[in-house]
Amino acid sequence: MTQSPKRLAYLGPAGTFSELACVTYGPADLHLPYPSFQAAVSAVDRGEADEAVLPIENSIEGPIAINVDLLIHDSDLRIRNEVVVPVWHYLMAHPGASLADIKVVYSHPQPLAQCRKYLSRSLPQVELVASLSTAAAVQDMMKLGREVAAIAPKRAAELYGATILVERIEDNPSNMTRFVVLGRTDHPRTGRDKTSICFSFAADAPGILYSVLGEFATRKINMEKIESRPTKQSLGRYVFLVDLEGHREDRLLGDALEAVKKQVSMFKVFGSYPKFEGPTNGSPGQ
Amino acid sequence: MTQSPKRLAYLGPAGTFSELACVTYGPADLHLPYPSFQAAVSAVDRGEADEAVLPIENSIEGPIAINVDLLIHDSDLRIRNEVVVPVWHYLMAHPGASLADIKVVYSHPQPLAQCRKYLSRSLPQVELVASLSTAAAVQDMMKLGREVAAIAPKRAAELYGATILVERIEDNPSNMTRFVVLGRTDHPRTGRDKTSICFSFAADAPGILYSVLGEFATRKINMEKIESRPTKQSLGRYVFLVDLEGHREDRLLGDALEAVKKQVSMFKVFGSYPKFEGPTNGSPGQ
Repeated sequence: MTQSPKRLAYLGPAGTFSELACVTYGPADLHLPYPSFQAAVSAVDRGEADEAVLPIENSIEGPIAINVDLLIHDSDLRIRNEVVVPVWHYLMAHPGASLADIKVVYSHPQPLAQCRKYLSRSLPQVELVASLSTAAAVQDMMKLGREVAAIAPKRAAELYGATILVERIEDNPSNMTRFVVLGRTDHPRTGRDKTSICFSFAADAPGILYSVLGEFATRKINMEKIESRPTKQSLGRYVFLVDLEGHREDRLLGDALEAVKKQVSMFKVFGSYPKFEGPTNGSPGQ
Repeated sequence: MTQSPKRLAYLGPAGTFSELACVTYGPADLHLPYPSFQAAVSAVDRGEADEAVLPIENSIEGPIAINVDLLIHDSDLRIRNEVVVPVWHYLMAHPGASLADIKVVYSHPQPLAQCRKYLSRSLPQVELVASLSTAAAVQDMMKLGREVAAIAPKRAAELYGATILVERIEDNPSNMTRFVVLGRTDHPRTGRDKTSICFSFAADAPGILYSVLGEFATRKINMEKIESRPTKQSLGRYVFLVDLEGHREDRLLGDALEAVKKQVSMFKVFGSYPKFEGPTNGSPGQ
């Protein structure tokens, strides 16, 4: 899955879950931090990076709408791979600090929310402070005293010299985030692929979505996912996003996509790519 | 549509879009502000309010995930009505202030983002400051000097004594939010109804979603919307939400729902209710 060292653009700084996705995907690649998802995508457009790694879906929160909309409306890059990263949270502090010292906890609002039960059970008196990212929380914490802790991925402790006080404090242990890897082309067939597409209709027509889905069902093509996003034109008009088992160059799937194209007003193949089957280096990097 | 005065719970304070939805839905009703969506729903559970008004979908941002998940997982209330409110933003300041005075603009981060183009074109030098709600932005602004403005619905200017400097500064003029009205029972048949349901499957089975949708398509029941939300159990498992034309007591739709129930592992009818056809008092209240 990993060829020669590539330049991977991600939402930085180092120590975020996006960087962890880069480590999982291409441990030997060059990981280039950018200040926003759009900036990471633009870096590939400009040739500054070869691929961009973007979170697209979380097992608890659902789609990462800003990135789904970026794929639909604002990018011609293709999905050429996917990476799934478990969202594990660690409580970390200065070397030498102990749990009894902690009076303040820094993190991004989302991890703070995802560790709410742990925090109210084990650290009911602490003050919670919001940071711009988990990595920024650890950087901020390291500049302050030993009464301050941060919640972040394990890797942030390694990068910034913090000590882990408590492992895996997330309330839901099955929390996972799926990332897509975008590049100028999608991935050649591997035999264990999936294909992501989107489409919309010019007018409301009862049964038209059913007819489109029938192109897949009658060919026994497994639909792994269907979701809808607003077209942004008017309430009640949607773009549908479907993930299918197979590669767009497989004969049956190729036939189905041709048949769908005739029934819709907008149609985009985001790309075909191998299904994620675990980290390439055997370790989740956490 | 409006009977005797009812007690409507909404996310306060007065002057938010949620209050505007209450004004549109039941101008003569009692509007009770609560500090969160969950608190508004709990007020109905406890009998403190008769109905709760919650935003469920925006024409640009898509589903309001926190409220969709609340309906799926955390409430047994029924949808008994819907209200659509145009999201129109107004720049307002102290009486006597003019546009040339303005150096700072307060609002909730979402309106600030939705007026980004206007702000960078017409007020490129101003400082933008985040508030907890549009109503709080106006309350804060009124305590400060005439160099401060706020972005909020028109109604907030009336409630808090501000003057409107510029009308309709939202970048996308077709921005609309759909609210659902929750109560202990859904709505009797009116002949122009819709029905919202959700369901999920115990196992992945190719074509099972297609088979469920076929129960509606073969009966020529129009599907107005389909979306998916994570089950929160594992990545790749979804709850599907479908809006259908008709009332659950209509014979064809009732038959279809019975047929669907046999094919799914989880099934919930959120309710049948009249389609929104405009404000009851002929004025959008903005």
